[in-house]
Amino acid sequence: MRKAFHLHSLSGIVASHKTLRKVLYLHSFSSPPSSTFLGPNLPDVWVPRHNTSPPHTLLPQSLQWTDNDDHSAAILEGKPIANHIKLKVADEIRRMKSDIGKFPKLAFVLVGDRRDSHTFIHLKSKACEKVGIETVVSQLPENCTENELLDVVSGLNDDQDVHGIIVQLPLPQHLDEERIMNIVSPEKDVDGFHPLNIGNLARSGRKPFFIPCASRSCIELLLNHGIEIRGKRVAIIGRGKIAGLPTSLLLQRHHATVSLLHAYTKNPERITSEADIVVTDVGIPNIVRGDWIKKGAVVIDMGTNQVKDPSSQVFRVTGDVCFEEAVKVASAITPVPGGIGPVTVSMLLSNTLDSAKRAFGIV
Amino acid sequence: MRKAFHLHSLSGIVASHKTLRKVLYLHSFSSPPSSTFLGPNLPDVWVPRHNTSPPHTLLPQSLQWTDNDDHSAAILEGKPIANHIKLKVADEIRRMKSDIGKFPKLAFVLVGDRRDSHTFIHLKSKACEKVGIETVVSQLPENCTENELLDVVSGLNDDQDVHGIIVQLPLPQHLDEERIMNIVSPEKDVDGFHPLNIGNLARSGRKPFFIPCASRSCIELLLNHGIEIRGKRVAIIGRGKIAGLPTSLLLQRHHATVSLLHAYTKNPERITSEADIVVTDVGIPNIVRGDWIKKGAVVIDMGTNQVKDPSSQVFRVTGDVCFEEAVKVASAITPVPGGIGPVTVSMLLSNTLDSAKRAFGIV
Repeated sequence: MRKAFHLHSLSGIVASHKTLRKVLYLHSFSSPPSSTFLGPNLPDVWVPRHNTSPPHTLLPQSLQWTDNDDHSAAILEGKPIANHIKLKVADEIRRMKSDIGKFPKLAFVLVGDRRDSHTFIHLKSKACEKVGIETVVSQLPENCTENELLDVVSGLNDDQDVHGIIVQLPLPQHLDEERIMNIVSPEKDVDGFHPLNIGNLARSGRKPFFIPCASRSCIELLLNHGIEIRGKRVAIIGRGKIAGLPTSLLLQRHHATVSLLHAYTKNPERITSEADIVVTDVGIPNIVRGDWIKKGAVVIDMGTNQVKDPSSQVFRVTGDVCFEEAVKVASAITPVPGGIGPVTVSMLLSNTLDSAKRAFGIV
Repeated sequence: MRKAFHLHSLSGIVASHKTLRKVLYLHSFSSPPSSTFLGPNLPDVWVPRHNTSPPHTLLPQSLQWTDNDDHSAAILEGKPIANHIKLKVADEIRRMKSDIGKFPKLAFVLVGDRRDSHTFIHLKSKACEKVGIETVVSQLPENCTENELLDVVSGLNDDQDVHGIIVQLPLPQHLDEERIMNIVSPEKDVDGFHPLNIGNLARSGRKPFFIPCASRSCIELLLNHGIEIRGKRVAIIGRGKIAGLPTSLLLQRHHATVSLLHAYTKNPERITSEADIVVTDVGIPNIVRGDWIKKGAVVIDMGTNQVKDPSSQVFRVTGDVCFEEAVKVASAITPVPGGIGPVTVSMLLSNTLDSAKRAFGIV
């Protein structure tokens, strides 16, 4: 097993929420359920290790990278695509309202009072309101019982006016996340995380009710920019349930040859440097360096890491890829912020609209 | 799109049932359901194409392979493992009978009168009987309606004495295979093909009720021979729902770095020749040649192809791997027949026993 990613190695960097969760998970790791057949449930902790300097700082001031200094990749901007999708969704909802007097409704379930969860729900709700999706938040106290939470979710499942349910993660430790997520009706699972939807995503020819938003976003960005997927070699770094894993399944359905890399992959750069498309979902700023990328490859950066600039002490969001290096090698690359992120939010709106249309019998 | 695998290129070889189905699918291919996001449902047809002679005959008489002529891989025999598992299952069932007077029961559903389906059910039933699993076959006529079939499956779902249900595939074309497979209770889906079970297999930390038998067999063979999986590079050739796809998910859970190859993969041998473990589920005899394999790699051949020896006109079963070449390069290899096959059957018995134990409340 590889060494854990310790907090003290994060000098000058405030670990992203995602990274922190991984670290916390590691520290709470005792003897998780395991089975001979299903394999050991080891913590999926990435180690930022790479032979070359500079270390993973916010903006490397003195890049060693000299090759192709005149080359610069196309930037796969997400905002124009997101805006286009939002306009389409808003337009459909407007017509829906005027034609049948109905509209989509999305329910959030929030347990406890985490500031980041409040922020996420606020951002998603605002996006919903702008396109005409009604939102409602069911808030439960931090110390609620599992049955209380299950009752709330079941109520939303039965509520014919609700078309999408999002249980905001993470849940407090005393609640069984898996059990609760399984209770969400697959037909209202707009996040696409229900095992039934994941299982139908994995199998060609089958249709899940929903595809996870970040994965749809990845496909949307590629298709919108005319990037061929079929027959291409894809390396996905990170197998998180929200982005990496479902994206591996979705790209495979698009007939890419997918390699799924993770914390136990040895020499990941050997695989990524052969890939036509590199997708990252790691949660460590700048872990993917320029020399991990093949010349002319496409880079989709799904990382969202909060980092603090050591000089200005200002926080900003950055991806998993060292953009300044990769942009000189890749043929196209998503920026962070402004790449996958905005499209992902628009995909949630699209999923919620699709669900409402299904409920209203609109094909 | 790559060229289709035409029947006339099969001179001297009787295509396996699997290959034939693929070819038939290709020929019946008009406009399958597709969606922008889910990717095109293209026929997954392998083309036997490799630069070197000899062609894919049953037993190449004059191998060009000379390197490492003195080396021979360890043969991963399946029968001893299968026998061991069968003995264990039989012993548990004997104790179950004497302790609580109960025993597992497996139901087969057969539509029509296909000879191969009869054979498969006969073989599985015989294996069941030997260990004390009762079997029952619900046979429906070829022209039965979908509702008639669904009623039979629903009845078996409700029957508390039945612990496993296998709907024998393929079904006649007028029946919606997906819809019928979805009706099988995930808790009796001893094949492990239900999307809920596949979805829970895909996600680390989650527990499907059942893991597909061929995938369990692959893990069993590796673990039994002390072959490390974690951190190893695995190339899986073929993404069939029965073996290739679920095995990719299972090996990933065991922390292998998995690349999933298929008909649209360009130069598959470039990827396989870097893999520590090569798993095949193609359905074309001898498609995987010796020079596809890295020295010292482990080869798991899941192919089961019926081929006719041109000289003797005798049929025999062979795998996807050119054994005579691969055995000189690999460190270990499964034979066909006698490798994955027998273990897969024993896994069905084990899955059925597990299901009965769950039903009887035996942990």
